[in-house]
Amino acid sequence: MGRVFLLSIGNELLSGRTVDTNAAWISGQLAERGIPTVGILTVPDEIADTVESLRLAVSKSDIVIVTGGLGPTDDDLTRQSLAQYLGVELQFHPELFESIAAFFRRRNFTMVDKNRIQAYLPIGTEAISNSSGTAPGIFARKDHARIFCLPGVPSEMKIMFNDFVLPRIIHSAGRQFVISRRLKCFGTGESMIAEKIGDMMLRGRNPLINCTVSDGVITLHIVATAPDSSVAETLIRKDQTVLCEMLGDWVYGTDDQTLAEVVGYHLARTGKTIAVAESCTGGLIAKMLTDIPGSSRYFAYGWVTYGNQAKQSELGVDPALLNKYGAVSEPVVRAMAEGALRKSGADFAVAVSGIAGPEGGTEQKPVGLVYIGVATPDQTMVHESRFSNSRPVIRHRAALTALNLIRLQIRG
Amino acid sequence: MGRVFLLSIGNELLSGRTVDTNAAWISGQLAERGIPTVGILTVPDEIADTVESLRLAVSKSDIVIVTGGLGPTDDDLTRQSLAQYLGVELQFHPELFESIAAFFRRRNFTMVDKNRIQAYLPIGTEAISNSSGTAPGIFARKDHARIFCLPGVPSEMKIMFNDFVLPRIIHSAGRQFVISRRLKCFGTGESMIAEKIGDMMLRGRNPLINCTVSDGVITLHIVATAPDSSVAETLIRKDQTVLCEMLGDWVYGTDDQTLAEVVGYHLARTGKTIAVAESCTGGLIAKMLTDIPGSSRYFAYGWVTYGNQAKQSELGVDPALLNKYGAVSEPVVRAMAEGALRKSGADFAVAVSGIAGPEGGTEQKPVGLVYIGVATPDQTMVHESRFSNSRPVIRHRAALTALNLIRLQIRG
Repeated sequence: MGRVFLLSIGNELLSGRTVDTNAAWISGQLAERGIPTVGILTVPDEIADTVESLRLAVSKSDIVIVTGGLGPTDDDLTRQSLAQYLGVELQFHPELFESIAAFFRRRNFTMVDKNRIQAYLPIGTEAISNSSGTAPGIFARKDHARIFCLPGVPSEMKIMFNDFVLPRIIHSAGRQFVISRRLKCFGTGESMIAEKIGDMMLRGRNPLINCTVSDGVITLHIVATAPDSSVAETLIRKDQTVLCEMLGDWVYGTDDQTLAEVVGYHLARTGKTIAVAESCTGGLIAKMLTDIPGSSRYFAYGWVTYGNQAKQSELGVDPALLNKYGAVSEPVVRAMAEGALRKSGADFAVAVSGIAGPEGGTEQKPVGLVYIGVATPDQTMVHESRFSNSRPVIRHRAALTALNLIRLQIRG
Repeated sequence: MGRVFLLSIGNELLSGRTVDTNAAWISGQLAERGIPTVGILTVPDEIADTVESLRLAVSKSDIVIVTGGLGPTDDDLTRQSLAQYLGVELQFHPELFESIAAFFRRRNFTMVDKNRIQAYLPIGTEAISNSSGTAPGIFARKDHARIFCLPGVPSEMKIMFNDFVLPRIIHSAGRQFVISRRLKCFGTGESMIAEKIGDMMLRGRNPLINCTVSDGVITLHIVATAPDSSVAETLIRKDQTVLCEMLGDWVYGTDDQTLAEVVGYHLARTGKTIAVAESCTGGLIAKMLTDIPGSSRYFAYGWVTYGNQAKQSELGVDPALLNKYGAVSEPVVRAMAEGALRKSGADFAVAVSGIAGPEGGTEQKPVGLVYIGVATPDQTMVHESRFSNSRPVIRHRAALTALNLIRLQIRG
């Protein structure tokens, strides 16, 4: 039938030291494929608690996904707990030991005795291979249920979930198809978006439309339910078209797309290049652009000119402008963008200078004041923003606003 | 005795739309006061599931804190579920109705019929007043257990937890103080750390030492329990000293400190400056250094020389080196670091070049190969690393490794 129960193992999850993002991520992946998560239980690193929670999970579901407790240290007890729950011994697997040893050799790390435990599996279970860490996962069956144990490290867990777990459970999921699409918006507030789309957000509607906000990006979730995936897809497409028309330039992409990805897509499509000159964002825009695989096709030059001297020597900003207007000003950002364009020979250059705080604000130039310049061979435009909130938020909003201005510029 | 079980109610927590930060926050508040959370269970907005989870929670603990499901809409069923679990009816409370109506009047909002349900409580239970929202909480007793139901909205929940719940449970939690400290380590693996510290990680020991790993950073949690906070603090200090001696240079900081923060601290302390020249990390190291408030004291110059041309024109890398060895090579990274040092006049320069993937790897130079150079006026050292995993992980590990090399260099 395909009902999933999630077990999260770890003392750190029960003492507020770590927020359990794994359970939210897994349940989200399942929900997108119409597979319900019926419960999430977090228990400490103790064999008795883990065994009891496995019993509960199997009684409530037919697929159990366990995260955490597979590491090499003495507080990692999922392996032993699973064996006890299944009523079997642990067995040493030389081929697992060899693959763990190979992982250490590749990284030029010394393998220690503690890692030996990771080559043990409960008798009758199967290893789930872990390409990016030492801890293999474990796949077990008990009565009607299938149990998948994955490491708690999110990056390892996600790869193993996608490669091993998902293909095995999608196959056995039910007949109602739930398909969702996310529309990503930037450049306005949540209430303005809600106002524009009005009745489309009514509860009970199919597709159901939800709105979430994170780091200045507004996401509309369109969730369609239908007995058939093509019907659900048609419902989604229809809503997507209507929403895009209502919201215009605010919609920048879908699903997991980031602003940097969309900018990169347009640059690659048109064969154009971009350069970046950053002061208050300190490398964040360059980092976002180069997060994207293949970004070397359109990005070659970036400067983090955090000091005034660097703005002069690296971008050729006239010291007279810096003296007269200060580093956080329209003329200086204009000169930074034009300097970056000239030195890089790129088709677009973006420059940012602002006051990220917490110190350095004045009455005329408060914390949160940011100038963003976008230069092309034909013209340079400078945009003034005033962000509120903390240093990381101001830097992040400034970077997204810069990427959004480039997006609108490239699209013409 | 004071063992707490947390129930989180809400479909949105089981579909990945919302991460359950309430449970982490509450368990953190409790842990700081020595009150253990023994389990966290998340269930959907369904009466049967909620009743069953209340039964489980009461069997495992003597304090149950429920969040969510107290709102005015049809999917909010905690009130009804609690009544069913207690075996009583719901009863209308005119004084609650009046206080909800007053809340709407204060905000000039129209109160709708749906809100009437929030003035009902299971017979024999007590309202928990909510100063910042419409949903009062509910306080109930069943057998040995006390049950606190709070709204899911974090801002309302936190006030009610602090004002109503905490005073009632601290009183009965006994006299044990729990204090914790985190030691942050970088530069080796979890198993090597565990091997070094050996018996100190034994279960049942006080302080209890747990080990977690996140993004290459290994955290040792030292958790001491004692009848008196100064005794707990002494226990922690003793372990901290022993661990720091055992682990040496691997320990870079405590609690929330990041590598960039520690590097910044040492630079500011010694009045030194740093410059950064990045290829595969694409601005990430500059971003991490400038995340820190006040970083302009020691950071002024950064280059993102993503293309070969930029490495030549901006850092003065000899084209012959690029032709002979390629951009990802010891000699080119050495030249990048020395170029950045020369052009910036800084005391330290760090340069990174590598293959972050997913494309661009060869047999000789696979994805994950990264060279990191650290230059000072006296010498330049280049370090070769081989990381596995995905592009973001490789970039992140490369940046942390670079910061760690700088840290070791600055400390001399």
